[in-house]
Amino acid sequence: MNIETICSPQLMHQIKDLEQKGVVVIDILRATSTINAILSNGALAVYPVSSLEEARSFEGKNFLIGGERNGTKVEGFDFGNSPLEYQKELVKEKNVVLTTTNGTKSIDIAKNANELCIGSFGNLSAIAKHMLNSKKDWVLLCAGWKNKINLEDSLFAGAICSKLKDASIDDASLLCQEAYQSIKGNLFNCLKKSSHFKRLSSNGISDDIAYCCVLDNSIIVPVLEQGKLVPYLNKA
Amino acid sequence: MNIETICSPQLMHQIKDLEQKGVVVIDILRATSTINAILSNGALAVYPVSSLEEARSFEGKNFLIGGERNGTKVEGFDFGNSPLEYQKELVKEKNVVLTTTNGTKSIDIAKNANELCIGSFGNLSAIAKHMLNSKKDWVLLCAGWKNKINLEDSLFAGAICSKLKDASIDDASLLCQEAYQSIKGNLFNCLKKSSHFKRLSSNGISDDIAYCCVLDNSIIVPVLEQGKLVPYLNKA
Repeated sequence: MNIETICSPQLMHQIKDLEQKGVVVIDILRATSTINAILSNGALAVYPVSSLEEARSFEGKNFLIGGERNGTKVEGFDFGNSPLEYQKELVKEKNVVLTTTNGTKSIDIAKNANELCIGSFGNLSAIAKHMLNSKKDWVLLCAGWKNKINLEDSLFAGAICSKLKDASIDDASLLCQEAYQSIKGNLFNCLKKSSHFKRLSSNGISDDIAYCCVLDNSIIVPVLEQGKLVPYLNKA
Repeated sequence: MNIETICSPQLMHQIKDLEQKGVVVIDILRATSTINAILSNGALAVYPVSSLEEARSFEGKNFLIGGERNGTKVEGFDFGNSPLEYQKELVKEKNVVLTTTNGTKSIDIAKNANELCIGSFGNLSAIAKHMLNSKKDWVLLCAGWKNKINLEDSLFAGAICSKLKDASIDDASLLCQEAYQSIKGNLFNCLKKSSHFKRLSSNGISDDIAYCCVLDNSIIVPVLEQGKLVPYLNKA
């Protein structure tokens, strides 16, 4: 298996033969951690949409709607982008529409991949196992922050590479893997230095960040099927 | 001091106010290591040019001409891009024209910076000291390989950040710094995993790579002045 890491969506055009590869979309703080939480708490599907207008078009149609812009919940929506909001009793057997600053945009640019799934520290081992079983090459697409490289997404790419020791990985993956090995076991403290931590902490949501750093609290893999993300249960 | 790291030249447009910032151009294998070697061995100046045609226009004008394309010396030139070729007895008090695949192109895209200098492991401490003394913000521009992120340039950016502990650094810099801290002291072995090592080793030039991994064999900083790189002696 070959793995390439794309540290900023603006480098995604470097990927050749996308339609033959799997893509893991990574937006740890917080879109992909939140999608994983929603589906792990029993929602039927998450519909990722890029624009607020598209999200609003689902209003009144038996959907829950969540979203943020620049880290803040959108007025009139049922939820923001905190994984802690989407409790089991609220989302079980529901359909959820979600729009976020960077995460859903990255899903959009990777939608022509052979397979698209969603990565978070909560399903790290499940994703790695899923990739290993798939017999294809993979791209780890870090959503970043407004196209800038960010620390937490890159570290997650490194965590995946550390799990898949027999894979052939490119230089960006090696960089992320070395960084992850450097901080391993100390993710929350490391992220305290990141730009995103400072942004989110100033909004008073460091509980979210602590949640997003928890490893392997889920065995599902969110996969994109006909425009919506559905839970794929990764059986042992 | 603020430090931003640009891991691929294709992300350089993210830098604001370039004309107020210093830029360190980094192409460890091998352009910037070679430039440092040439000036450390007593050459008067290195003229970095992007195209082969521009390099050839210096022929017959008392210049030494060096260059490579895709890792191989250009036919008819005096030198390739190996730092080991540019021995003191050959380059002392000479002017050298150099064109390389990625390095000179990165110099070109950063030429409007407030100051541009050249980074290599051979002048790591000299560069860090120079930055510290300069009282401005800095960009670490990794040349990469055909716009892809590469390991050795990113590790050098991390090495610089590790030297400048009081600087405020962005997420890309944090990523590189963590990676460098992970491999510290074991650069050559780490680079053995990189794509560039495989490419260069297959051309039989692993001696070059060993040379490019040596720390602090020079106290000069190559700086761009009126289109040419000249040695700035970093006094203790």
